[in-house]
Amino acid sequence: MTVRDPYAYWLAFGRVKGLGGIGFKKLAARFADPTEAFLASAAELAQIEGLHRDVVDGLMKFSGWDDIEEELRHIRDAGIEILPFTSPAYPERLRVIPDPPPLLYLKGQLCAEDDRAVAIVGSRSASEYGRRVARDLARGLASFGFTVVSGLARGIDGAAHASALQAGGRTVAVLGSGVERPYPPEHEELYRRISEHGAVLSEFPVGTRPMAFNFPARNRLISGLSLGVVVVEATEKSGSLITAALALEQGREIFAVPGEAGASRSRGAHRLIREGAKLVETVDDIVEEIAPQLMGRAGISTQVARVLPPDAGENTRKILALLQDNSLQVDQLIERSGLPAAQVLEILLDLELQGFVRQSPGKLYAAER
Amino acid sequence: MTVRDPYAYWLAFGRVKGLGGIGFKKLAARFADPTEAFLASAAELAQIEGLHRDVVDGLMKFSGWDDIEEELRHIRDAGIEILPFTSPAYPERLRVIPDPPPLLYLKGQLCAEDDRAVAIVGSRSASEYGRRVARDLARGLASFGFTVVSGLARGIDGAAHASALQAGGRTVAVLGSGVERPYPPEHEELYRRISEHGAVLSEFPVGTRPMAFNFPARNRLISGLSLGVVVVEATEKSGSLITAALALEQGREIFAVPGEAGASRSRGAHRLIREGAKLVETVDDIVEEIAPQLMGRAGISTQVARVLPPDAGENTRKILALLQDNSLQVDQLIERSGLPAAQVLEILLDLELQGFVRQSPGKLYAAER
Repeated sequence: MTVRDPYAYWLAFGRVKGLGGIGFKKLAARFADPTEAFLASAAELAQIEGLHRDVVDGLMKFSGWDDIEEELRHIRDAGIEILPFTSPAYPERLRVIPDPPPLLYLKGQLCAEDDRAVAIVGSRSASEYGRRVARDLARGLASFGFTVVSGLARGIDGAAHASALQAGGRTVAVLGSGVERPYPPEHEELYRRISEHGAVLSEFPVGTRPMAFNFPARNRLISGLSLGVVVVEATEKSGSLITAALALEQGREIFAVPGEAGASRSRGAHRLIREGAKLVETVDDIVEEIAPQLMGRAGISTQVARVLPPDAGENTRKILALLQDNSLQVDQLIERSGLPAAQVLEILLDLELQGFVRQSPGKLYAAER
Repeated sequence: MTVRDPYAYWLAFGRVKGLGGIGFKKLAARFADPTEAFLASAAELAQIEGLHRDVVDGLMKFSGWDDIEEELRHIRDAGIEILPFTSPAYPERLRVIPDPPPLLYLKGQLCAEDDRAVAIVGSRSASEYGRRVARDLARGLASFGFTVVSGLARGIDGAAHASALQAGGRTVAVLGSGVERPYPPEHEELYRRISEHGAVLSEFPVGTRPMAFNFPARNRLISGLSLGVVVVEATEKSGSLITAALALEQGREIFAVPGEAGASRSRGAHRLIREGAKLVETVDDIVEEIAPQLMGRAGISTQVARVLPPDAGENTRKILALLQDNSLQVDQLIERSGLPAAQVLEILLDLELQGFVRQSPGKLYAAER
C-alpha cells in the first residue's frame, strides 16, 4: 500500500462522487480520523447507516491520486493552507453544522477571535443606501470586536469586508471558487487585503472556477461560521435569502435591515422580518441579540469589547477579561495574567479610574456591569 | 321634575366631573338607558361597583343644564348629529372598547360599511416618502372597500383622508376638538369634503378647542373604530405609538411601514415591528391579516372584494358572497339570492369563466379559494 501525504486523503474527499458534507459527517462520526475511510473495507463502510452505496464505491475505488498530488504542489506554491475537519484550527462553529466541508482551503489567517463572527450579506446590485448601511454595520461590528464574514461579492459583501478592514477589524471571505481565485475581478485588491489582514476560505479545490451552483453551498459556510447573519438588501429571489434559510437551519440568528416600502431591493429583507428575522437599524440591535450567547464564555464578553476604547492595550483587555466572570484579588490577577505585578497594578488603577472595574473590600477586583 | 330633551342628558355625561368612558360603561351596564343615572337615587348609584364617589355626587348634583341647552341649539344650527351610546348608529366596534364615549358628535354620515375600517396614522411632519405610502395604502384600502380612519392631522393623516376620498372611498376623521372645529386650519377644505363624503366624529363638546391633552383620548377612538391601525411614519415619541398601544389594548391589529435604517421618522414604526407589529409594504399585507376577521360574516368577504373587478355588478357580488361559506346548488342560489333563474345562471357562467367559482359534480357551485 502506498503511503500518501495525509492531506492527499483530505483533498480526495472533495473528489469522491456523491460525497457531500452530510456523508462526510457520517464518516467523521465513525472514524476518529476520517481519512481512514479510504483504507476501510467495503463491509466496514457498508455498516455506516445512511451512507450511500455509491459513496462506498467511490471511496473504495478512488483513483484520482495523481490529480491530487498536482493540486498539493499547487497549494504549496500558492501559499494556501489546508484545514482538515480534524484540525484544531478548523472553525469549531462550522464543525457542528449538518454538512461541514471535509476540509477548508485558507489564504491568510484564522484566529481564535474569529469565532465571534457575524455575517453581512446582501444584493450584488445594492443601492447606495444599502452599501452605506453595510459599511456602518461592518464598522460597528468591528469596533465591538466581531469578525465580519461575507462572500466577497459585489455590492453589500464587498462594502462589508472593506469597512471591517478599514476599521481595523477582522474579516473572513468565503468563496464559491478555489481559494486562490478571487471573484469578481474588480475585488482582486480587496481579496489581497483580506488575505493579508483576515482570512479567505473555500471548500472548493484549487482551480475551481466561480460557478453559480457553488454559491448556495458557499452560503452555508458564511452562515455556519457566524453567530448570526445580517441581510442588508435582498430582492425576493436573492441568494441572501438562501443564506438566511441555511442560517435558520443551523440555529443562527437572522437579522434584516428594512428599507422603504416598495423598494424592490428591500423586499427580501422585509419578507425575512415578517417571518421573524430581527429588524436591524444599528449595530446595537445585533449585539443586543447576540450578547446572551457570548455571556459566560471565559475571556470573551461583549462588555469588554464594548466599552474599552479601541486603543486599549492587549494586556488591559486581558485583565478585564479575567474579571468578567469572577472577582479576583491582585495576586490572582498577577498569576493568571502572567504579567509583572507593577503592570497589573497600573492597569487596574487605570481601569478603575475609567470606571471599568471596581475594588471591593479585601482588594477584590470586579468588572463593572 | 323638569322634562328635558333626552339628548340633554347625553350631553351632560361629558360634563360630569370625573366621569370618563370607563365610569360611563359601568352606568351603561347598570341601566338599559344610561341617562336614567341622572334620575337615580344616590343609594342606587352607590351600588354600582367601582363607580367613584365623586361621580355619584356629580350625577346627583349636576346643574349645568343651561349650558347644555345652549349647546343643543348650537348643535342643531350647525347641522351636527348626536349619536348616543345606545343609538343603533353608534359604531358597534367602539361600543365594546373599555372606555367608550357616552356620545359622539357627528358631521356627515356614518354607514354600515364603516365597520370595515382601517386606521392610517403617522407623523405630522411626514417625509415625502411617508406621505406617498399613506396615499398608496389609503387608495388601496378604499379600493378594497375599507373605510380609512384617521385624525385629520397634518402629514400622514391628511394624506390618508385625501387619498381615500380621491379613490371614491369612505373616510372618517376623529377630532380632538369639537366636531365643528377642524384643526389644523389648512385642513378646512379637507374637513369640508370629509363631512360631505364621509364622517367627522368627536366626543368633545361643541366649542372644545384642539388641545394637546385631548389627543390621546381621541386616538383611542381612531383605533377603536378600526379593525387595525397602520403606522406609516412615527418618531420614537410620536402620538402614533400611543394609538398603537391603545389598539393593542383593544385587540386591534397593528401594522407598521418600514423605512430606511437611520431615518428618525421610521424609528417608531421599526420599534413597533420589533415588538410584533406586522410589517406592511403594500395594502395586500393589511388585507391578508384582516381578512380572517371578516370571513364568515354574511355578505362581506374580502375574497369577494378582492378579486372581483370594480365594475362587477351588485348581483354578481351577491352570488359570489353566497358561495363563500358553502357550496350551493343552482336552485339554492336562486332561492337565496332572490334573483331570476336565468340571471343566476348567467352570472354563474360568467364567474366560472373568470375563474371565481367552480362547478362540482351534482351542479354544486363553490367559490374558488
